[in-house]
Amino acid sequence: MLRALELAARGPATGANPQVGCVILSPGGEIIAEGWHRGLGTPHAEVDALSSLAPDGARGATAVVTLEPCNHHGRTGPCSEALIAAGVARVVYAVGDPNPVARGGADRLRDAGVEVIAGVEVERVEELMHPWLTAMRRGVPWVTLKWASSLDGRAAAADGTSQWITGEAARARVHLQRAAADAIMVGTGTVLADDPSLTARDTRGGLLPSQPIPVVIGDRELPATAQIFHHPQPLIAMHGHDLHAVLSGLFARGIRRVLLEGGPTLASAFIAEGLVDEYLLYLAPILLGGGNLATADLGVGTLTSARRLTIVQFERVGEDILVRARPREEG
Amino acid sequence: MLRALELAARGPATGANPQVGCVILSPGGEIIAEGWHRGLGTPHAEVDALSSLAPDGARGATAVVTLEPCNHHGRTGPCSEALIAAGVARVVYAVGDPNPVARGGADRLRDAGVEVIAGVEVERVEELMHPWLTAMRRGVPWVTLKWASSLDGRAAAADGTSQWITGEAARARVHLQRAAADAIMVGTGTVLADDPSLTARDTRGGLLPSQPIPVVIGDRELPATAQIFHHPQPLIAMHGHDLHAVLSGLFARGIRRVLLEGGPTLASAFIAEGLVDEYLLYLAPILLGGGNLATADLGVGTLTSARRLTIVQFERVGEDILVRARPREEG
Repeated sequence: MLRALELAARGPATGANPQVGCVILSPGGEIIAEGWHRGLGTPHAEVDALSSLAPDGARGATAVVTLEPCNHHGRTGPCSEALIAAGVARVVYAVGDPNPVARGGADRLRDAGVEVIAGVEVERVEELMHPWLTAMRRGVPWVTLKWASSLDGRAAAADGTSQWITGEAARARVHLQRAAADAIMVGTGTVLADDPSLTARDTRGGLLPSQPIPVVIGDRELPATAQIFHHPQPLIAMHGHDLHAVLSGLFARGIRRVLLEGGPTLASAFIAEGLVDEYLLYLAPILLGGGNLATADLGVGTLTSARRLTIVQFERVGEDILVRARPREEG
Repeated sequence: MLRALELAARGPATGANPQVGCVILSPGGEIIAEGWHRGLGTPHAEVDALSSLAPDGARGATAVVTLEPCNHHGRTGPCSEALIAAGVARVVYAVGDPNPVARGGADRLRDAGVEVIAGVEVERVEELMHPWLTAMRRGVPWVTLKWASSLDGRAAAADGTSQWITGEAARARVHLQRAAADAIMVGTGTVLADDPSLTARDTRGGLLPSQPIPVVIGDRELPATAQIFHHPQPLIAMHGHDLHAVLSGLFARGIRRVLLEGGPTLASAFIAEGLVDEYLLYLAPILLGGGNLATADLGVGTLTSARRLTIVQFERVGEDILVRARPREEG
């Protein structure tokens, strides 16, 4: 299973489909095939692995796969049927399929006489798939909020200048995090104030291979000259103040991971409504003072109702500090 | 010299006098005596080392000492004379004495025919003595500003609650930092709002052996019931808004290290006037939002005039983050 997990990680972390890996073992326990999913429209991991074997090569074999084999005709046929047709005797998987349309693969396999063992190394596999699984289970994308601030929590100086609060290394890291998201979201205020391109770029300014879809929230009109209109992905503009509806709408378009880049008003609304799954806080070694805060009102009246976080990563990035945190699960 | 530095570090880091260590080497180069300074009113390191030798034991010897031997009659006699009287042939020291009253020891030794070598391992010794040397050279105490805030830079929730933003481990660390300061300073606003004891306590609430002198700045009257009046050290109350004069006044009372604990108004005034030498920022893994900021206006109009810091320490303390930083020296 750990080998299958390694294979899974080779696939793209972005897109509507999860990272899945598959290893096929001979009846004697030797690895005879490996496969992984390379993204929407390409074969699933099980089919990818089977494809490297002769038609009878998997007879009596064991398929070890990180996710329950799917049971539906999507862009590819159901993996349950492919495994049955190949004569696989046993299927071992980690995580059950959270997709209501695709699930049922384990039952289908058992009905066909295949031995099925579920839940193997489930914690480690869930760790890799956590954002995708969370998004799938609740029908709302995984939301990562990123901001850059001074050590005293300011997103800009008194005159509004904010480029650049953080150094080159931190900015390069943010571009990689953009490339790992399906969509990048800002409020109309940020477009009007900063005219960001919202592209994922390398250190020389060139576009990275994977580009997040730009999403702009808000009712203010955008100038036709805004850089965002030159993004390689077509813009999604969403109106209204029902953020949950906004996220559901993005999920329906196949978006599983959203990187929320601000500004403070939109970010604070997401925090206040409990819609942030992960925080990427870049703290620059500067003090600014003044009134341009990284967060506005979060609906926290008293200290005991503070938004409590668990820090999952904490490191220097160049001269800046990166704190990656998630909402604390109250015990 | 590195052994002398180790000995120096055994002395108290607080008080008007510096940490000094001394090693006496025989003419053959063997260590025959060691000494260090234990604080105001006790023998200086050189005399402490000589005291362990027979009257003629140091004849022809080399004294290695971290600070230039003093040349004045204070609470103890001048070390230069003690070294001459003991027949020491050579004195090696790291840092010249910054005290205008005490300096001249090297010249006095040379006049008496003692070989003097200065500047040995000066960087490492200056590192240990940095706060004291800085205070002595400019006649103003070393000022460490400590605050505890949320990750979004709030010192309190909307209703003013701030106890406790940080966890037990961070609070225990702060008490050790209080014990390492000569004085602990707050504004009258903090006394009125929080009624702090300003003592240095262990985790069971008992007083630590070393207690900083409580200093309150501001013009508002304090209630007679304030806990600060029960501090084991007598309170220094200072009025007026000339912070430089406040600091000079504390220096004149023998205070070399001040721990400034707030509140935000006083802290911001010190930052804005460039009077902070070191920052101890405890960042709790919470978000608060709202208007109770850790800093107010710092006189920073635009990003390029931000107060830039160099982070010198960066660690998790319990669940919190400690960032120790100093103003960046502009190259």
